Amino acid sequence: MSAARPTPQVAAGIAAIVRAAGSHVPLLLAAVELRLAEIAQTHGPLLGRHAGDTIASGGKRLRPLLVLLAAGREPEDPSELLACAAAVELVHSATLVHDDVLDSAALRRGVPTVWAQGGRALAVATGDLLFSRAFAEMTAVGTIAAVRTLSRASSALAEGELLQREDAWNATVSVERYLYRCELKTARLFEAACELGAISAGEPQAHVTALGAFGLRLGLAFQLLDDVLDVSGSAGQTGKHRGTDLLDGTVTLPLILARRRDETIAAVDPREIVTPQQADALCERIEATGALADARAQALAIVVDAKQGLAALELGDGQARALDLVADSVVDRQA
Amino acid sequence: MSAARPTPQVAAGIAAIVRAAGSHVPLLLAAVELRLAEIAQTHGPLLGRHAGDTIASGGKRLRPLLVLLAAGREPEDPSELLACAAAVELVHSATLVHDDVLDSAALRRGVPTVWAQGGRALAVATGDLLFSRAFAEMTAVGTIAAVRTLSRASSALAEGELLQREDAWNATVSVERYLYRCELKTARLFEAACELGAISAGEPQAHVTALGAFGLRLGLAFQLLDDVLDVSGSAGQTGKHRGTDLLDGTVTLPLILARRRDETIAAVDPREIVTPQQADALCERIEATGALADARAQALAIVVDAKQGLAALELGDGQARALDLVADSVVDRQA
Repeated sequence: MSAARPTPQVAAGIAAIVRAAGSHVPLLLAAVELRLAEIAQTHGPLLGRHAGDTIASGGKRLRPLLVLLAAGREPEDPSELLACAAAVELVHSATLVHDDVLDSAALRRGVPTVWAQGGRALAVATGDLLFSRAFAEMTAVGTIAAVRTLSRASSALAEGELLQREDAWNATVSVERYLYRCELKTARLFEAACELGAISAGEPQAHVTALGAFGLRLGLAFQLLDDVLDVSGSAGQTGKHRGTDLLDGTVTLPLILARRRDETIAAVDPREIVTPQQADALCERIEATGALADARAQALAIVVDAKQGLAALELGDGQARALDLVADSVVDRQA
Repeated sequence: MSAARPTPQVAAGIAAIVRAAGSHVPLLLAAVELRLAEIAQTHGPLLGRHAGDTIASGGKRLRPLLVLLAAGREPEDPSELLACAAAVELVHSATLVHDDVLDSAALRRGVPTVWAQGGRALAVATGDLLFSRAFAEMTAVGTIAAVRTLSRASSALAEGELLQREDAWNATVSVERYLYRCELKTARLFEAACELGAISAGEPQAHVTALGAFGLRLGLAFQLLDDVLDVSGSAGQTGKHRGTDLLDGTVTLPLILARRRDETIAAVDPREIVTPQQADALCERIEATGALADARAQALAIVVDAKQGLAALELGDGQARALDLVADSVVDRQA
């Protein structure tokens, strides 16, 4: 259960999203991109290289996109909105860099990680700097409410990481605890992204909370589907081999569900899975139990919930349609 | 050049400081301590144990003390002041936890590090959480100006760490670059501590800046003296063996100055120093050049500057005396 792995499907979805949301969205996304590149370059050659690579390979900017879409209309002065969008991506990037240290991961999306290129020390420091820069970015133009939202989400991320370490290799972890881990590790930053957009747009608290609830559900579904992808394979989609979660002791929903249906799977000690071949074989057996289909169905139900929550809000047509499409794009990663 | 290592001298100094500053200071320090313990305990048993140990072994609370003293008088509502004091200590603690990962350090102040007890992954995540909690603490009650001050300091800390990695094993690093590293790695958090106290007290910007300048100089002297201590030894004072900086490739002022005076030292490649015995022998030779005395004199001159800057401010007698005593306590670590 590493953090989000955006896929080509998400990218394809973005074009339709942008059509629905209006032409200011790609312009603002481009401005976020420029700002991220500037931030990477203002800290000397070392950070420029390593943080720049990380930010550049950072995927499809799903979180900044959520910030922009949750704001709805184009603001007269976009500086706070842009800072929020850049900041969530910086926090996400910081997490990726530290995750790669934790997992000793050589590649991310086919690109060598900071850990692999510069070593542990450089990767820890680079993550710390990206993280600090996120807050510096927000405090330069943002309100205290916005910074508070980001700091809560980043506390949740770190707590989720600790929870994952605490539960490592424990096959008997409950579904509830697994879902809580997903909430902390992934969903709370999605929630914050949506809240930050709404806060920047000056929306009332009830609206901020409702958009946040949409983001939280979306993030939860995103992580569940990510964990299904790790077992189902399609390395072309994920850029990783199947079963990496099994190999690093991360027990996710597919295994939890499969253990209930297959005694031989229930008898497996996760620590016994040490080779890619063993992981691959266990993935096959998990899939054969129907656990993947069930986990996927659970994720889709959460997306339906998210969309229903949106429908209850009085959003403009374009905004509602764009957020709906983002929800669809998360599901389509599995297609 | 690890971050600050407070010593018994500092502790002894604190009693006198408290006498000068007034009885509200120990009460507020106790409140900070309580808050830090609460924060460690609100994140489950794993963080409670590891972060709690780190925070508990975190030394003499020099940075929170600076926050409280820079505020001057006792505020009617101390909540922002306490949050600032707790936050600077949390950022400092986060840095210590990550530094121990970077250095693979088994002990800090004689206590096993989080890295040694829980491993790399746990230590990275614990540091991230302490860091996030610092911002959460500030944003709960602080102003945007205060959060901005903290975020700039924490960016500087991470930049300093990157700079240290970039300059590792490079014996030809310049004094200017070394001083800039000290500024980033240590002095900017001292500066932020003083600024945060003044901000909490509602002081005008010029006063905030002037107190910040005092903190910056104090932090710079603190790091210089710390680096002298690493070469001069007195493991009883520092809780470490002498020459640890040499062993981990950190080139500090004593070596930089000694290389100018002794050709045989200038000819040493830092990578050749791999055993504690070799490090000890090189420390002896550095000391014999008089480089330690020079580095110490440079630090003392910075402290004199810091005090002179203070004298130009119109502080109350108690506050001026207390800050003077803090400056003295930093120098006394060398006694």
